[in-house]
Amino acid sequence: MTDMQALGKRAKHAAQHLIRATTAQKNRALESVAAALERQSHAILTANCVDLDAARAKGMSEALMDRLSLQTRLPAIIRDLRTVITLPDPVGTTFDERLLPNGLKVHRRRTPLGVIGVIYESRPNVTVDVVALALKSSNAALLRGGSETIHTNRALIAAIRDGLTADGALPADAVLFVDSTDRHLIAEMLKLHQYIDIIIPRGGASLHQFCRENSTIPVITGGIGICHIFVDESADLDAALPVIHNAKTQRPSVCNALDTLLVHQAIAESFLPRVVNHLADSGVTFRAEPRAQAILDSVSHHGKVHPADADDFDTEWMSLVLGLKVVDSLDEAIDHIAAHSLNHSDSILTRDMSHAQRFINEVDSSAVFVNASTRFNDGGALGLGAEVAVSTQKLHARGPMALEELTTYKWVIIGENHIRS
Amino acid sequence: MTDMQALGKRAKHAAQHLIRATTAQKNRALESVAAALERQSHAILTANCVDLDAARAKGMSEALMDRLSLQTRLPAIIRDLRTVITLPDPVGTTFDERLLPNGLKVHRRRTPLGVIGVIYESRPNVTVDVVALALKSSNAALLRGGSETIHTNRALIAAIRDGLTADGALPADAVLFVDSTDRHLIAEMLKLHQYIDIIIPRGGASLHQFCRENSTIPVITGGIGICHIFVDESADLDAALPVIHNAKTQRPSVCNALDTLLVHQAIAESFLPRVVNHLADSGVTFRAEPRAQAILDSVSHHGKVHPADADDFDTEWMSLVLGLKVVDSLDEAIDHIAAHSLNHSDSILTRDMSHAQRFINEVDSSAVFVNASTRFNDGGALGLGAEVAVSTQKLHARGPMALEELTTYKWVIIGENHIRS
Repeated sequence: MTDMQALGKRAKHAAQHLIRATTAQKNRALESVAAALERQSHAILTANCVDLDAARAKGMSEALMDRLSLQTRLPAIIRDLRTVITLPDPVGTTFDERLLPNGLKVHRRRTPLGVIGVIYESRPNVTVDVVALALKSSNAALLRGGSETIHTNRALIAAIRDGLTADGALPADAVLFVDSTDRHLIAEMLKLHQYIDIIIPRGGASLHQFCRENSTIPVITGGIGICHIFVDESADLDAALPVIHNAKTQRPSVCNALDTLLVHQAIAESFLPRVVNHLADSGVTFRAEPRAQAILDSVSHHGKVHPADADDFDTEWMSLVLGLKVVDSLDEAIDHIAAHSLNHSDSILTRDMSHAQRFINEVDSSAVFVNASTRFNDGGALGLGAEVAVSTQKLHARGPMALEELTTYKWVIIGENHIRS
Repeated sequence: MTDMQALGKRAKHAAQHLIRATTAQKNRALESVAAALERQSHAILTANCVDLDAARAKGMSEALMDRLSLQTRLPAIIRDLRTVITLPDPVGTTFDERLLPNGLKVHRRRTPLGVIGVIYESRPNVTVDVVALALKSSNAALLRGGSETIHTNRALIAAIRDGLTADGALPADAVLFVDSTDRHLIAEMLKLHQYIDIIIPRGGASLHQFCRENSTIPVITGGIGICHIFVDESADLDAALPVIHNAKTQRPSVCNALDTLLVHQAIAESFLPRVVNHLADSGVTFRAEPRAQAILDSVSHHGKVHPADADDFDTEWMSLVLGLKVVDSLDEAIDHIAAHSLNHSDSILTRDMSHAQRFINEVDSSAVFVNASTRFNDGGALGLGAEVAVSTQKLHARGPMALEELTTYKWVIIGENHIRS
C-alpha cells in the first residue's frame, strides 16, 4: 500500500536540501539524469511496450496510443532535458531592491516553491519535462501519472533517481512517484498541504475540476481553451487566411488551437466563403450561426458547413471543427469572447491599432494576440525554453509556466539593529 | 435572504466595467468615496456605537472592543484611503518585453484580478482599506465582515457606494457587501469560483483553515506567525536588547511580533539574564526550555520565567509572553525555525555576514531580517504604502500584499500575421 503521508514527508525533506543546491550542482545532476535515461533507454522502451500492448488490448484509439508512445521520442525528450540545463537559474535572483528612508535595505529574492505535485494523464514525456524544470528551480517533485502509463513512468523514474544517486549532489527523493493506479490516492495527495506547495493537474476538464474541489493545496488550473480569432473590418484578408489555417489545423488537438472564428459583418460576405474554401481542403468542417450560415448557403461548400448548436460556441473542439460567427462590431466580438472564452488564447486580425489596443486591454485571457496565430501561447514559442503547464487562472502565473513560475520570493530586509517606532 | 449567486454575478459584471477604468477615473472615484465617508461620519459612528453597545452587553473584552471601535479612528482611516490615491497604479504596466527571433513582439502586462472576496473579523477599518486597494487596482470587492461589526460595515458600505454613485465613473457594484450574519453564506461564497477570483481571509487560524478546506477559489492564507529572533555569537548585544524589546513589546497582539528568542550558547550565559531584566520591566513573562531555564535559575527574575511546555514553541503568543531557547549553532537555529516557524517573519542578529547570508538563504519565511525587528514585515513599513494582507503561503504573493499583488498579468503578442511552423 502506498503511504502518501510518508511520500509527502520524504518530498518535503528533500526540498529542504534542495534549497542549498547551487546552479552548478543542479546542472550536473540534470546531466547525470540525462545520461541515466540514455543508459536505461532499452528498459524504458520495453516498459513502454508493456503499456502500449495493454492499451491495444483495451482497444485504445490510435490517437491516444500515439500520445502514450515513447518509441521514437525518447532522444528528443532527453534533448529537451539538456535544453533546461542551458536555461538561466531563477533561484536567488533579486528584484525590487530599495533603500527605505529609515536606512533599511529591502529586496525580494526568488526562492523555490518547495514540493511540486503533478497529477497527469497519458503522455509520459511530462514525467521528464516536469522533473527537469522542478530540479532546475530547486523544487522536489511528487508525480502521479496515468494508470495507462504506469510501467513507462516507473522505468523513467527509476532512471531519473539512478541519475541523481550517481551524481550524489541532490537527494534521490527530490523525485518521487506515486507507484499505484489507485485513484483514491489522488484525493489523499490533494490534502497533503503540510508537504506539497502546489498542485499542477495536466489533463482534461474533469481532472481540473476534481482538483479544484478537493484540494487543500493551491491548484494551477489551465490547459483548456476555447480560442477565438476575430477578423476585423480592416484586416489584411489575404494574410488572415494562413493565420486562421495555422491556428485551426497545425495541431488541432491542443489547447491553443482555434475553436471559433468571429468575422466583422462588413467583410463577412466576401471573406467567409474564402475561409471555408481555404480550410475545407485540410479536412475542416464548420458550425455556423444563422448569419454566417446564410452567407455560406449561397456558395458551394460540399456539405461541410452545419448550423451551430446552442453549446457549440462553448465547446473546445480538439479536432478539425471550427465555429463561425458574424459580429457587428469590435464590441460584439469582445462581448462574445467574454461570454464564451476560457481565458486561454484569443487573437485579433486588424490594421486598426486603436482596435488592437482595445482588444489587448479588454479581452481577459492568458494571452492576447494581434495579427498572430493563437498557437504561439506556449513556453517554447514565447521564448521561455520550456513549460510545465499553461495556466488560465489568474493567481501566481498566467499563460506558460516555466522556471520562474516554479519559484516564489521572500522579502529580505537588512538593517543596523533597526526598531519600529 | 441573501442571494450569494446574485451578489457574485453583480460583482463580476462590475469587474468587467472596471477593466476599462483609467487611473484618473479611479482616483476621482476614490476621492468621492473619501468625501462621502466624511459627509456620513456621523451615521457611521452612530452605527459603530450600536455594535459597541451590543459587544458590551455580550461582555466582550476591552481589547476586542478596542479593535471594533471607530470612534477616534475614522479620520485616520479616511487619510489612509487618500494615501492610496497617491500610490502608482500597477494596472497596464508592462514587463518582460522582448522581440523573438521570428519577429513576434512579446510582453507581459498587469491586469486586475477581477473580483476580490474578503472574509474578515472584527476591525471595520479593513472595509475601507480593502475597498481603497481593490478599486485602485481596478478590482471589484465582495466583502463579508464579522457579525459583531455588521452595523458599522453596513454604514461604511453605504457611504462608499454613495461616493461611487456621486462620482459616476465606476459602478457602485464595484463594492458589494454580504449583509447578513448567517455563517452558511461563507461556505457558499467560497464556492463562487465562477465569479470570484481570489479569497483573502483576515482572521484567526480557524478561519484560514475553513477557507482552505472549503474553497474552490484560490485562497491567500497568512496573517499568522510564530516569529523568531536568533541572537548569534557575534551579535552586538547592546544593540540586540532594544531590537528584541521592540519585536516583542511594541504591539504584541499582531502577527509579526516576536514569539521565540533563540540564543547562541556561547553568549547565552551572559545575555539571557540581560534579556529577562530588560523585558520584564515591560511586563513580559518567559517560557524557557531547560538549558535557558538553568541559566536563568541562578539569577533573580521575580518569578517571571517558567519552564516551557511541549507546545510552547508552536504557539503564537499574541501577548507579552516570550519563548527562550539556547542553541548550539546557526544550524540548530535554522533547524528550529524550520520545525516551528509558520514562515512569517524571522530575524538574525549577527555581525558575521556569512551567517547572515546562510540565514537569508535557508530560512524559508515570507520575510527574513538581518539586524532588524520582525515588526517591519508590513506593507507600510516596507514602503508599499498600504497592504490588504500579509501572505505566508508561497503562491502568487508572499509577505505584504499591496496594489501590485492585487493584479495578475496577461501575455501580449504582436505579430505581422505570424504563423507557427
